[in-house]
Amino acid sequence: MLKFNEQKQVDDIQGALNLRPHVEHIVDKICKKGYDNIFYLGIGGTYASALQAETYIKGHSNLPVYVQHAAEYYTTGNRRLTKDSLVILSSVTGTTEEVVKAVNEIEKVGATLVGFIDTKDTPLAESCDYVITYPAPGTEQIKFFMVADRLMNNNGDFPDYEEYYAELEGHLAKGLVEAEKQADTFGQAFAEKHRHDTMHYFIGAGNQWGGVYSYAMCYWEEQSWLRSKSIHAAEFLHGTLEIVDETTPVTLFLGEDEQRPLAERVKKLLPRICGNYTFIDSKDYPIEGISEKNRGRVLSHLLMHCVTQRIDAHVEKLNCHPLDIRRYYRQFEY
Amino acid sequence: MLKFNEQKQVDDIQGALNLRPHVEHIVDKICKKGYDNIFYLGIGGTYASALQAETYIKGHSNLPVYVQHAAEYYTTGNRRLTKDSLVILSSVTGTTEEVVKAVNEIEKVGATLVGFIDTKDTPLAESCDYVITYPAPGTEQIKFFMVADRLMNNNGDFPDYEEYYAELEGHLAKGLVEAEKQADTFGQAFAEKHRHDTMHYFIGAGNQWGGVYSYAMCYWEEQSWLRSKSIHAAEFLHGTLEIVDETTPVTLFLGEDEQRPLAERVKKLLPRICGNYTFIDSKDYPIEGISEKNRGRVLSHLLMHCVTQRIDAHVEKLNCHPLDIRRYYRQFEY
Repeated sequence: MLKFNEQKQVDDIQGALNLRPHVEHIVDKICKKGYDNIFYLGIGGTYASALQAETYIKGHSNLPVYVQHAAEYYTTGNRRLTKDSLVILSSVTGTTEEVVKAVNEIEKVGATLVGFIDTKDTPLAESCDYVITYPAPGTEQIKFFMVADRLMNNNGDFPDYEEYYAELEGHLAKGLVEAEKQADTFGQAFAEKHRHDTMHYFIGAGNQWGGVYSYAMCYWEEQSWLRSKSIHAAEFLHGTLEIVDETTPVTLFLGEDEQRPLAERVKKLLPRICGNYTFIDSKDYPIEGISEKNRGRVLSHLLMHCVTQRIDAHVEKLNCHPLDIRRYYRQFEY
Repeated sequence: MLKFNEQKQVDDIQGALNLRPHVEHIVDKICKKGYDNIFYLGIGGTYASALQAETYIKGHSNLPVYVQHAAEYYTTGNRRLTKDSLVILSSVTGTTEEVVKAVNEIEKVGATLVGFIDTKDTPLAESCDYVITYPAPGTEQIKFFMVADRLMNNNGDFPDYEEYYAELEGHLAKGLVEAEKQADTFGQAFAEKHRHDTMHYFIGAGNQWGGVYSYAMCYWEEQSWLRSKSIHAAEFLHGTLEIVDETTPVTLFLGEDEQRPLAERVKKLLPRICGNYTFIDSKDYPIEGISEKNRGRVLSHLLMHCVTQRIDAHVEKLNCHPLDIRRYYRQFEY
């Protein structure tokens, strides 16, 4: 299989889950001290992961959680982010310009900064009050959700927390690589069919919304240089549907969280107005050892990422376009 | 001028501003009773207006304000929306399916509902605790912002409130129709150049973000059946920029609120990577009698709407496509 190192992927996921005692120690200390608001700080891909964490927490608790865009923060500030707030962020390089600028401002306010910073001795690693360094691609969401889960557990919103993580630790890593193997044939067929699309529409709701937002922008546009648009399933029905016809390429991501009915409504409509649609449903990817009630919490967007990784690997090869080159980003100052 | 009834537009805006004593009476009663959180409820176009109101309040106060998507609400609920919450909504027909369903659920929770419902004796008019009926197209944002301004005034965040509204009442209506006249030549040229674009990108920040979101989706896609994508100025630099080249049609909206620097960053970059861009800057439209410091609060997105109305009027005529027909919406059940 293209770009697939099974053992490394298993080790990466397992290693991310093994960060849990460290995450719990940090979150418990913060909860003991108390906090007023929770902010997931991000930009681009990390903004999308922040959207997922926020949707997840809002769906399961009444904790005061917000997504804070890093560039908006250093431009305007946010009076609800105070010295008593908790800010969670993630960065591979530790040098993302907008995040560095936002964190510099947040330091002046005095909020508590928890950073998953994958490169040591970088500006972001130095600025955070608590740093976890675990450089493994594809584990950002697990890290963000681990913080969310512990916060909710401490808030009394997640009584099955230990049982849930026992399932993940026992079965998630293996389950995800098996799903990726299962998805490879589909990924290749999808890549062959859509790799020259002049525009591709991606639709999703719930945790899938951050997923499709990031997939359209950070993968198709940024990495594959393919034009695409993401639209929330609930919003698709209030405008975008009007430009869909027989030939429009549309892909709907269906997850298993509490917003699934919003995606199902689009699923019912699409075949009546479009002849070029695809449904990707996380339910089609069973994972042994993870109970039905726990699948919706975490699996939908991780499974979807397994599927899209297969598409991307084939697009990269077929389109002769290395995914790590950029036309403009970090090529010159702007 | 096409589709332009100067006296009616002046009367509509003036009439919306004249609702202020009514709005103040309602907001003052709610403030006296107290509230925990403020929710602007919407879907599609009203969701976009809600985004603008939220950005505006967040930029000027620490009030606990949220955008609540109507379909997400009836699908999942929101534990932060309680019997002590204030919910503000707007509807032309009073029958928007998703909003009716959301409001039915909110009534059970017992939150206070303030509705700008333009049709009497409709489900939404009946459900709201306070209803203002003033059917004049293009005044939704003025209504939403009037509530926001009074809430902020009562919270001590807007000491110049009276002076500000004196300026608007004296000069806004006339200023906006003058701006629309000024924009007509540009609107026609833009329509002629772009009315067959296979895809058009709209970029904005701050209050312009809700504006470009709505313009791309509710006007280009829904009304003109033209393909378009909106992207926040800060996010454009983290993905979407990579698919821009010489021929890509890109339009940047520049407003005058506190997020203007985010749009200016894109303004600096675009000419280096694109040969088919347009800047629409609200600063190019002077309004007599409104002071510099007050322009940013309200004018940016209202002025932008004056400009885009001119584009739409010409696109409608040139493309022989009536803006009020729909392929799918309300044509059949889905």
